[in-house]
Amino acid sequence: MGVTPEERQVVAEPERHAIRELLVGRPLDSASAAHQTIRKFVALPVFASDALSSVAYATEEILRVLALAGGVGLAAFSLSIPISVIIVGLLIVLTLSYRQTIFAYPSGGGAYIVARDNLGESPAQVAGAALLTDYILTVSVSIAAGVAQITSAFPMLTPFRVEICLALIWLMTVVNLRGVKESGAAFAGPTYFFLGMTALLLLTGFWQLTHGSLGTVTDVRMNVIPITSTLTILLLLRAFSSGCTALTGVEAISNGIPAFKEPKSRNAATTMAFMSGILGVTFIGITVLARRIQAVPADETVISQLARTIFGRGPLYFAMAAATTAVLIMAANTSFADFPRLSALQAGDGFLPRQLTNRGSRLVFSWGILALAILASLLILLFNGDVSRLIPLYAIGVFLSFTLSQLGMVIRWRKVSRLRPDEEIQSKGTVLRPDRWWWAKGTVNGLGALLSLVVTLVFAFSKFTEGAWVTVLLIPSLVWLFFRIHKHYRDTARALSLEKVCDPDLRGHAIETILLIDNVHRGTLQQVRFAESLGRPWIAVHIGADSAKAERTRERWNQFVGHRGELTVIESPYRNLVGPVQQLIKQFQAENPGVFINVVLGQLVTTSWWTQLLHQNTGPLFKFTLQRMHNVVVTDVHYLLEPDGTVDV
Amino acid sequence: MGVTPEERQVVAEPERHAIRELLVGRPLDSASAAHQTIRKFVALPVFASDALSSVAYATEEILRVLALAGGVGLAAFSLSIPISVIIVGLLIVLTLSYRQTIFAYPSGGGAYIVARDNLGESPAQVAGAALLTDYILTVSVSIAAGVAQITSAFPMLTPFRVEICLALIWLMTVVNLRGVKESGAAFAGPTYFFLGMTALLLLTGFWQLTHGSLGTVTDVRMNVIPITSTLTILLLLRAFSSGCTALTGVEAISNGIPAFKEPKSRNAATTMAFMSGILGVTFIGITVLARRIQAVPADETVISQLARTIFGRGPLYFAMAAATTAVLIMAANTSFADFPRLSALQAGDGFLPRQLTNRGSRLVFSWGILALAILASLLILLFNGDVSRLIPLYAIGVFLSFTLSQLGMVIRWRKVSRLRPDEEIQSKGTVLRPDRWWWAKGTVNGLGALLSLVVTLVFAFSKFTEGAWVTVLLIPSLVWLFFRIHKHYRDTARALSLEKVCDPDLRGHAIETILLIDNVHRGTLQQVRFAESLGRPWIAVHIGADSAKAERTRERWNQFVGHRGELTVIESPYRNLVGPVQQLIKQFQAENPGVFINVVLGQLVTTSWWTQLLHQNTGPLFKFTLQRMHNVVVTDVHYLLEPDGTVDV
Repeated sequence: MGVTPEERQVVAEPERHAIRELLVGRPLDSASAAHQTIRKFVALPVFASDALSSVAYATEEILRVLALAGGVGLAAFSLSIPISVIIVGLLIVLTLSYRQTIFAYPSGGGAYIVARDNLGESPAQVAGAALLTDYILTVSVSIAAGVAQITSAFPMLTPFRVEICLALIWLMTVVNLRGVKESGAAFAGPTYFFLGMTALLLLTGFWQLTHGSLGTVTDVRMNVIPITSTLTILLLLRAFSSGCTALTGVEAISNGIPAFKEPKSRNAATTMAFMSGILGVTFIGITVLARRIQAVPADETVISQLARTIFGRGPLYFAMAAATTAVLIMAANTSFADFPRLSALQAGDGFLPRQLTNRGSRLVFSWGILALAILASLLILLFNGDVSRLIPLYAIGVFLSFTLSQLGMVIRWRKVSRLRPDEEIQSKGTVLRPDRWWWAKGTVNGLGALLSLVVTLVFAFSKFTEGAWVTVLLIPSLVWLFFRIHKHYRDTARALSLEKVCDPDLRGHAIETILLIDNVHRGTLQQVRFAESLGRPWIAVHIGADSAKAERTRERWNQFVGHRGELTVIESPYRNLVGPVQQLIKQFQAENPGVFINVVLGQLVTTSWWTQLLHQNTGPLFKFTLQRMHNVVVTDVHYLLEPDGTVDV
Repeated sequence: MGVTPEERQVVAEPERHAIRELLVGRPLDSASAAHQTIRKFVALPVFASDALSSVAYATEEILRVLALAGGVGLAAFSLSIPISVIIVGLLIVLTLSYRQTIFAYPSGGGAYIVARDNLGESPAQVAGAALLTDYILTVSVSIAAGVAQITSAFPMLTPFRVEICLALIWLMTVVNLRGVKESGAAFAGPTYFFLGMTALLLLTGFWQLTHGSLGTVTDVRMNVIPITSTLTILLLLRAFSSGCTALTGVEAISNGIPAFKEPKSRNAATTMAFMSGILGVTFIGITVLARRIQAVPADETVISQLARTIFGRGPLYFAMAAATTAVLIMAANTSFADFPRLSALQAGDGFLPRQLTNRGSRLVFSWGILALAILASLLILLFNGDVSRLIPLYAIGVFLSFTLSQLGMVIRWRKVSRLRPDEEIQSKGTVLRPDRWWWAKGTVNGLGALLSLVVTLVFAFSKFTEGAWVTVLLIPSLVWLFFRIHKHYRDTARALSLEKVCDPDLRGHAIETILLIDNVHRGTLQQVRFAESLGRPWIAVHIGADSAKAERTRERWNQFVGHRGELTVIESPYRNLVGPVQQLIKQFQAENPGVFINVVLGQLVTTSWWTQLLHQNTGPLFKFTLQRMHNVVVTDVHYLLEPDGTVDV
């Protein structure tokens, strides 16, 4: 062996690309990973904007369903208030449930982890499939709803709805490829702006209400065509499940605990309490005011109708529209934090492609971010950026994951109940300690699980034909796919395992070196020089698909290379290039079992991709076939076409 | 050297693929190429259907333009008759011109060849660009017009217009990939069916006309909104150029002479005379009858209106619709014969990618056929399968190529005039012999060139804003591209040339072998075995992007392979894999100039494409960078994952 690389002091410098750095920043080294944590004040916008922003569409989607009961007329709209109150009750139960999860799983207690630890592999994969589906939908729904705010304020932009949605998704992708800390900072301002504007809207609205100066909305035309004249139970259930979209995202904090500053659990729990309080108050407030101003589902969003009626179409109206759009974009950003994190977890467990665990130059899970952006963009294109068409697919996954997560917590409390008073079990990501209140805490989680299950079923049944069937079919398909992937990784690991190998046979075999010659030119000389360098016998073969060319090649070979070795021409009247080589290799191997066949290909490398396409590029064709043959090795000898028009070999 | 392949009697059998053979037939050997010729009776449908089928839309497109002159009302439609008469006059001149080309170029006298021989490289490339553009448009326009016949007969199919167009294009693609002879046979029946039905339609129509029983069309609503109240010269010119689309395809036979049976020129000329006669008569006949029944441009095609009025909506009506659709599909097929042929010619001259000269397993130019199908499909998608939107782009290219071709013939006659009485000049594809009538024949071609030029200019100017600008810009862009490609091939050939090399240095250099190790498993053992087989020192390197994994890899290496050589770990804190390898290679090369670096990669090959995606596949990444380094050779050692779950290495 020669001098080792260490003696040469190889230092791996980061690879630099000007355009990539401009977009996503300079590379960060792996040791920086731990520093990417955030304060509560920044965590709220990063993890809670999904939940908070739901108020921008939840009330409207309730009204949109109630409007279908045409005969009952606007009276049906009054039911929006009791429906929201029930939803807020549900929110309280879920918040209490999830606080317990946050303390039990300080290193991150998403539904996937809790289900995996307590329920087993299959429920965990169901939770994973449900959550990934919903993260994608969160991006699509939030962005579409944000753009609906823009087109409410500026109706002339309506034709460009899809284009604006896509531009926003890809802008966010770039921000997130820079890393979560910078994202948090960039996104905090807009979320607080929304909270401030919403507070102002609600306070002004209720002040006007109590002083009798609250008007009703004008110049708005309902765009829902009634389908029945009586309010059926089915419609009520659909309205309720539409409203439940307000609760999507309340679990986000429990997934993101590791991103908080220490003490992580306490900070995360406090943030969650704040978030739920704000969410409950604004949701009920907006629903009540929307009813009072007689808002209706229309091309203009309900938030826009409210702001127009309460503020008038002045600066405050536009500020509210801007703030709502901004917070909805932040909401989509929640998924850009969670989707890559969860998919990396599942990939680490071998249920998704392993590439998802690779951190990019900025330490974020680049593949996950890109996959999310692509899938969300596809949904926007398929559903034409229309919130109401996306809503029936949405939130089933969230409530299914709530159910599994809370059920997992119930199992965990049962384990706790069986501990001896001084026993403590350390497990990956959680510690089981005796707790005298295990029965009360278990009951809270049990109630959370039960209610979530009911909502999941209501959602799936009442909206099945509207689009929920897509999700209902998609989740099991994904689970099936995850297990297929898992099986492949397991089989591969087993096949490659050295477990039963004590003393592997590493002796060399004989090698036959075959040079494939397409033509004789400067590049061919390099191919021959390399073969000569190997210091062993070699043979050169030309596949004669065109007999005139074969003759020319043989002549030139004899002129330039002939003294080093003979060129064999194999006629191929059917113009098949790979087959004859395969047959030749099989003959060699039959005569000399165990021999390595080293096929040496010549490959012209041009200066640009388009000129590369102008050459035959049969290399990949050969490799595709030869790589499926045992003990066959393919060597590429490149010769470069330089920009100055020479070949330097 | 070992035993040569000849001694092993390698016979190149055709490669067989069940699905491909079902679609395109079994492979044909190269020697069969000469047999693929066709009789006049079969040649007419193959080469003339483009021209003949134009009558299905040419009259309608004249009316569509005249309808824009709303104020003049239906009276403007009367002008369709003199316009068609002028167009038929033009047809006669072109037919006489092209007959002379056919005799002068018995091995094929398309505009490209005639321009190349007589006018030089640049005009030839202009002709090539013009023709290729129009071949693509012929497919799109003919298929769209064919489907318009279908939707006229069955209006409920209108929403699926684009889908039907695409299905037809790809059906034709499969037929043509089987080869021209089978195509001819498959396509003869429908064309003759159309000619028979058209004859019946015209005879019945004129019989009714002379007996006073010809009705006028009912239940049809004009779908053109008038834009002016006076018939401007511009509109007249536009109507004329729309009508000139009837002449597209008259050149097809002159391109296809080699496909005729001997005597090729005579058979081709006879076929051309037949074709022009039939075309002229049917075009005028249809235009006259359309005027008499007061046909208007509408969603229903003019042919459908005619057939409905003359035959009534019975079996004959549907037979006519079927025949028209069928002949339009045949017309598209003309391009499937010509486009691949012309692009192979241009590619042979180095102006298009060389792959276009490769004959597929069935001896047809498969790449050309596929390229045509893809481009025509794109046009259908872009223009939503609407004939009227495609027409303004169409026919400019054809008339430009007519101009260049006839101009080339004029130059050729001038050369003939200078020959001594007994002189004969043999040139590629043509023979120059003294001809006492050179001046008369030259005048015919000159008149053809002049008229074609006028039509080209009228077309480009009168339809510039309607869409002709696309073609006017596209043709020079293509010519520019062709010359870029040509320059690249010329530069590459010069760079690779051995012309000034007398005694090339073919001595071997030193080799440094670097094994890149990602992990230690059964596949790694194969990598090591191959390195050992080379019988020279080697080093093994692991790029440590993840320090825990690096430690694990080092341990396993020491356990299983350590006694054969040491593993060097290069830390890469920025997780860059390729950079450190590049730096290592540069150090080796600096120390030992001229050394070959053989980078040996391990590559897991799985049983299916989707499982392949689940692995890191960093190989292509390494190769992309390493292939741009001098004297660096990349060797792939594959290890196969078998379907039974083992790795056989």
